[in-house]
Amino acid sequence: MKLVTPLLEKSGVRNALVMPNLKPPITTTSQALSYKKELQVLAPNVNFLMTLYLVPELTPKEIYLAKKSGVVGVKSYPRGVTTNSDSGIESYTAYYHIFKAMEEVGMILNLHGEIPSDADNGVCVLNAEEKFLTHLKQLNKDFPNLKIVLEHATTKAAVEMVKSLNDNVGCTITIHHLELTVDDWAGCCHCYCKPVAKFPYDRKALQDVVREGHKKFFLGTDSAPHARHLKEGPNSAAGVFTGPYVTEYLAHALDSFNAIDKLEGFACINGRNFYGLDVKKDLINGQNRGISRLENSNFKILDELPFKDDEGIERTVVPYKAGKILNWKLKK
Amino acid sequence: MKLVTPLLEKSGVRNALVMPNLKPPITTTSQALSYKKELQVLAPNVNFLMTLYLVPELTPKEIYLAKKSGVVGVKSYPRGVTTNSDSGIESYTAYYHIFKAMEEVGMILNLHGEIPSDADNGVCVLNAEEKFLTHLKQLNKDFPNLKIVLEHATTKAAVEMVKSLNDNVGCTITIHHLELTVDDWAGCCHCYCKPVAKFPYDRKALQDVVREGHKKFFLGTDSAPHARHLKEGPNSAAGVFTGPYVTEYLAHALDSFNAIDKLEGFACINGRNFYGLDVKKDLINGQNRGISRLENSNFKILDELPFKDDEGIERTVVPYKAGKILNWKLKK
Repeated sequence: MKLVTPLLEKSGVRNALVMPNLKPPITTTSQALSYKKELQVLAPNVNFLMTLYLVPELTPKEIYLAKKSGVVGVKSYPRGVTTNSDSGIESYTAYYHIFKAMEEVGMILNLHGEIPSDADNGVCVLNAEEKFLTHLKQLNKDFPNLKIVLEHATTKAAVEMVKSLNDNVGCTITIHHLELTVDDWAGCCHCYCKPVAKFPYDRKALQDVVREGHKKFFLGTDSAPHARHLKEGPNSAAGVFTGPYVTEYLAHALDSFNAIDKLEGFACINGRNFYGLDVKKDLINGQNRGISRLENSNFKILDELPFKDDEGIERTVVPYKAGKILNWKLKK
Repeated sequence: MKLVTPLLEKSGVRNALVMPNLKPPITTTSQALSYKKELQVLAPNVNFLMTLYLVPELTPKEIYLAKKSGVVGVKSYPRGVTTNSDSGIESYTAYYHIFKAMEEVGMILNLHGEIPSDADNGVCVLNAEEKFLTHLKQLNKDFPNLKIVLEHATTKAAVEMVKSLNDNVGCTITIHHLELTVDDWAGCCHCYCKPVAKFPYDRKALQDVVREGHKKFFLGTDSAPHARHLKEGPNSAAGVFTGPYVTEYLAHALDSFNAIDKLEGFACINGRNFYGLDVKKDLINGQNRGISRLENSNFKILDELPFKDDEGIERTVVPYKAGKILNWKLKK
């Protein structure tokens, strides 16, 4: 936290949706608020949008309190769902009273959109997202006024499903899923994340919807700073670390598929509109402040970033595209 | 070589098809014979079946010499093909005079059955094998008397294609592809190999054809002993190391899907028949010697095997299922 939080502003980030999957998870408003306080000290100019972890203990009363206290969303993970039902994600019905309360007060449901792998039933990391989409459709049907974000979509099927649903369903796309396919994480732990990057046609669908400038699709980095030793081992932690160079990576990626003109919409406008945030707040001469700092010149990504872990041991974390050259850079 | 070759006999292996993809590659009969000599010293009781690497320099004359000298096969790798043509694997026609000579003298063509990844044309590690199969079909059509082995098949499509072709087309399946799917190598470098393990239905097709006892399908381990530091890094070497416990792993795997009665056919008979080797040679009381040493009791796979590399540095190599318990073991 101490390493990555101060990097956000340097990286051009002004709004960060904070995930609740800590150890222990953030399940109450008071936990969320005290976590926010810690983050705010490390990055005073970043707007931290807090979330709660969807757990059986959550009550409508807690939802009302959360909303009043400025918590914006509730995040659902497949594992949290699975523990409460043999049939995995189908137990969403167990949370319908929570979703009802969220719909009432205007809180956002953030979905990790995968069902758990289950080889006997043909489910694996390659089709876990596609098989989740019927649940997304059902949720939108049952709660048409509940704002839902399908987080870090990775498939053509997901793009098509989100497009087909009403305007209360939005979708985030990460930087790395705009660039990677399965070939990139096969044997390359620093490109391994969940959901995994998939087929070339899936990547193309993600690129196409960004190039189209579709309003329902916006940036969500899903940046995950796992220490090098947790990535480069027999069992690699899932996650790609894009936090230190969000704007630069994104400009480089969009430029590669002729969508650089969609950068501001995808990174600064569509998401703010979906969340009801002030789009004009960070404008300088009509352009977003982060975007205005971008210049089309080369710079090299660091090989690693050092930090001390909780036991005081010197560690490093490897950023996405470590040692590679990007075509865009942020002026100070 | 010094570490893994002596393990073969202990592991129950009596016949080993030796891959030619060394640095430099084995492209001539004299190289193959001197390599065989080195191996034979390390494992006097193993029958080493030598192969040449399919390269443009190969001549029919060399094929005649190879056959006369006991070399049994020629191995084709996608990269070796790609370097000679923009259109990759289609340049097999450039090798038709070689295949003609091989067909004449009865040498076997061993195929690494993948086309090179090419995102612009939708090819990635997940469909590279399936997209290769039309080439296999064409080769069998153009050289119906050429014996061809599709090596380390990983897909349902490959099983179906091999079944549909004539009896001169055989197919090997590895131990690990009978057990793994994409979920197992996602984030787990010691289960990462090429071709990658695929969908649950692909694994099921491989298991089914073994359980069926189909004569055209037989064991090929594709055992690849990469040192630990070459696996557990930013870019992992592809390969699973099954060499030290071939019979034990295989018995455990087949037992898990009710095919233990097919062990001898799959491991000792089908392949020997395809290669024209003496099936009766290693029999003890009518049963293969390796199989007769198997007993249904637990043992634990070592965490790693130590060795000294060519520079004298102490290294280790991690076997498949390191630290796990198998249900079958070989008596000494």
